[in-house]
Amino acid sequence: MAEKVTPRDVDYSRWYTDIVLQGKLADYSPVKGAMVIRPNGYAIWEMIQKYLDKMFKDSGHVNAYFPLLIPESFMKKEAEHVEGFSPECAIVTIGGGQELEERLYIRPTSETIIWSMYKKWIMSYRDLPILINQWANVVRWEMRTRLFLRTSEFLWQEGHTAHATSEEAEEETLKMLNIYKTFVEEYLAIPAITGKKSESEKFAGALHTYAVETMMQDRKALQAGTSHNLGQNFAKAFDVQFQDKDGKLNYVWATSWGVSTRLIGALIMAHSDDRGLVLPPRMAQRPVVIVPIWRGDDQKVQVLEFADSVYQELKAKYNVIFDDREQYKPGYKFADWELQGIPIRVEIGPKDVANNKLVLVRRDTMEKQFIDRKGVLETVTDELNKMQSELLEKARIFRDENTFDIDDYDEFKKILAGKGGFLKSHWCGGAECETKVKDDTKATIRCIPFDRKKEDGKCIVCGKKSSGRVVFAKAY
Amino acid sequence: MAEKVTPRDVDYSRWYTDIVLQGKLADYSPVKGAMVIRPNGYAIWEMIQKYLDKMFKDSGHVNAYFPLLIPESFMKKEAEHVEGFSPECAIVTIGGGQELEERLYIRPTSETIIWSMYKKWIMSYRDLPILINQWANVVRWEMRTRLFLRTSEFLWQEGHTAHATSEEAEEETLKMLNIYKTFVEEYLAIPAITGKKSESEKFAGALHTYAVETMMQDRKALQAGTSHNLGQNFAKAFDVQFQDKDGKLNYVWATSWGVSTRLIGALIMAHSDDRGLVLPPRMAQRPVVIVPIWRGDDQKVQVLEFADSVYQELKAKYNVIFDDREQYKPGYKFADWELQGIPIRVEIGPKDVANNKLVLVRRDTMEKQFIDRKGVLETVTDELNKMQSELLEKARIFRDENTFDIDDYDEFKKILAGKGGFLKSHWCGGAECETKVKDDTKATIRCIPFDRKKEDGKCIVCGKKSSGRVVFAKAY
Repeated sequence: MAEKVTPRDVDYSRWYTDIVLQGKLADYSPVKGAMVIRPNGYAIWEMIQKYLDKMFKDSGHVNAYFPLLIPESFMKKEAEHVEGFSPECAIVTIGGGQELEERLYIRPTSETIIWSMYKKWIMSYRDLPILINQWANVVRWEMRTRLFLRTSEFLWQEGHTAHATSEEAEEETLKMLNIYKTFVEEYLAIPAITGKKSESEKFAGALHTYAVETMMQDRKALQAGTSHNLGQNFAKAFDVQFQDKDGKLNYVWATSWGVSTRLIGALIMAHSDDRGLVLPPRMAQRPVVIVPIWRGDDQKVQVLEFADSVYQELKAKYNVIFDDREQYKPGYKFADWELQGIPIRVEIGPKDVANNKLVLVRRDTMEKQFIDRKGVLETVTDELNKMQSELLEKARIFRDENTFDIDDYDEFKKILAGKGGFLKSHWCGGAECETKVKDDTKATIRCIPFDRKKEDGKCIVCGKKSSGRVVFAKAY
Repeated sequence: MAEKVTPRDVDYSRWYTDIVLQGKLADYSPVKGAMVIRPNGYAIWEMIQKYLDKMFKDSGHVNAYFPLLIPESFMKKEAEHVEGFSPECAIVTIGGGQELEERLYIRPTSETIIWSMYKKWIMSYRDLPILINQWANVVRWEMRTRLFLRTSEFLWQEGHTAHATSEEAEEETLKMLNIYKTFVEEYLAIPAITGKKSESEKFAGALHTYAVETMMQDRKALQAGTSHNLGQNFAKAFDVQFQDKDGKLNYVWATSWGVSTRLIGALIMAHSDDRGLVLPPRMAQRPVVIVPIWRGDDQKVQVLEFADSVYQELKAKYNVIFDDREQYKPGYKFADWELQGIPIRVEIGPKDVANNKLVLVRRDTMEKQFIDRKGVLETVTDELNKMQSELLEKARIFRDENTFDIDDYDEFKKILAGKGGFLKSHWCGGAECETKVKDDTKATIRCIPFDRKKEDGKCIVCGKKSSGRVVFAKAY
């Protein structure tokens, strides 16, 4: 708290790190590339788990747990997959004091180990579908840590489903993408674009990949979640066939989908300000803090009694912090809770007691409101709901203001060299043009959006015919 | 379901494995020593997490997450600790395609990595206590898998707390042990003995270890949870000092405590029978199954309508399975749900509809009761509560009937060579006598129970003076 958060326009990247470290959301660990998720950060992950897990279960999924360590030979069974993941794996070569006969990869993702089990479990159409999700840690080697956004170990969930038909697998892929979109918008309060990834950006081993894309305050894109239609690739690699109703053998159809602790990074970068974290109310385990203010013992008794009655009323519905610490001044406390992103602060001083009022400050607007003591629970609930929807709205306006239809490649490059944003431009569909954009501007195709209009145009790079715009942006 | 569970008295060990595999609780994985926790088994783990996590939070603890990989040098900082754990570690030597400069151990437990962070976070008494828990996977190399009970990777929670005084640390150690005891008895329905471990059985790096000990149906002991007072060992190893109120520097006092997916094994072995799993109602995500029974379409309409009304009523409170699958006969369904341990089965046939009755079968007693349709929710709730407490009572009677005060070493050996049980015998406190018992009988001292009476006696081995009995048993 002695330090100060670096303002966004001084250094956006330091601003982010300051919020994470000073807000005690995470910390660097002594292991290169790995981080520690501190209680304030883990509390956000618990909220993400709570809501997503319910959405998964309500849509018929169940949880299971598969081994952390994957035999090297398994990783190698799907050609694209091993090529994509093998260079970034951590590999165990010693176990129980002995050199291992076969090296074991710490899972970078679990398709291979899971499909080796599905081979044991799937015989007939009666065994399908399998709708399993796993909450787990994975390791993908990284030397340059970006807290929450890029770390060599992260927490995530990975769904792995098995289906009798291609149509069912595609339906599942899209259903889970939509669950992610709903979650990102309604809980994280971040507007989301959904669409298909280009060939070069798809998951290693997938038929195609869909993604949820969001915009951060520096106008960069952040991929919030992905859902893959794996076709029959893994079923073929692991020889998983099932007998259909007519007794014929068929390869099983697969999907996988995941979101990770990276969502916490998205949450921070989408809403926070130069005072610190701004937490959407639904993601706050502790959405309200009460700070009583007094001088001298007479005031103290009065104020604490009044504040306690407010506390008791709010506590019935919310996990409320009652900050009556005597060693800190109110100003210090305000700054501390602002840094940690508590959505609503209630201040109660001697004047408020006399007037039967209290002061309410919402973390996003920072406006002081004098509200009646009576009905405080309803008022707080209203303000939390308003804050949740206004945060989404504010982020949506920001994104839309920074999204441009661009048809000229010079302008395209100029914007990306400057403030950046989402650039909707025509693209011929060719990998070469995609690569050229990346080389010229560092921007990538975030997705081919589902909601794009059919529109005749010319590829922003080569000028060939195109039938619709895709979203280009620099990304995390 | 084509297979049959091996009866307990034919082969106890196969009986256990049959229940786990056929009940789809877990499966062997292609990775030696590791298992897959299938949805039925993971659902039990979710219930364990749900209740324990609430008990941890209600007692002031918060969750966090620390890295999976621990630098070798950290493991070596506490001498006893490395000696205890190093031989059973899995070690990463390659990361991102390169040989690592320093080898990384997959955590067998997290004291070392956590105390390296506490060094950064603890400066003054104001930073204490730290009451952190972590839900995580750990790896301890094992080649002979015993599903849930002994696997090279398992899931657990590990609490790691830091305190200003020795007294506070001891208080925390005991508080958490008691939380485990309460949980094991009130949720898993297994009676628990709490006490102190002997020097040779304590945690590597602890001052002393307390444990919760339970008896399985083969009269062997299973350690359900441990709580360690780590003294200042890890604070000294990682040089973690704090400034007290008088400005003096002191080493921090520590505890750690944990339970694991092993509890699922305990649960299975404590209550199940030759038909399969018996699940205490509080641990069942789906405590009730309704099986409608009919012949022909007329009956079908009638029965399903009636059954659905029961379903709607019970669903308001419980996650109910409505098994109207047409491809299976009632007998098959009964056996299937018995195998999976669903606590209560409700059968509804045409006669029941006519009489406005239904049949209720409790999984533990297997007795059929004809109950009134009216008040079915209350009846089911009553029966679930009764089942929960009767399971505990039954297990307590079994344990007490197989617990003996033994003062003669020949008798002691004879019992352990035969049926086994908990043997309460005098012990001089010497490691040699403890080792001799182990060599002679494979039994170990499970604990020095807190509730033992002061009683003068002679060590069962050497005959030296002793002031109280300890609990000997063979253990998992």
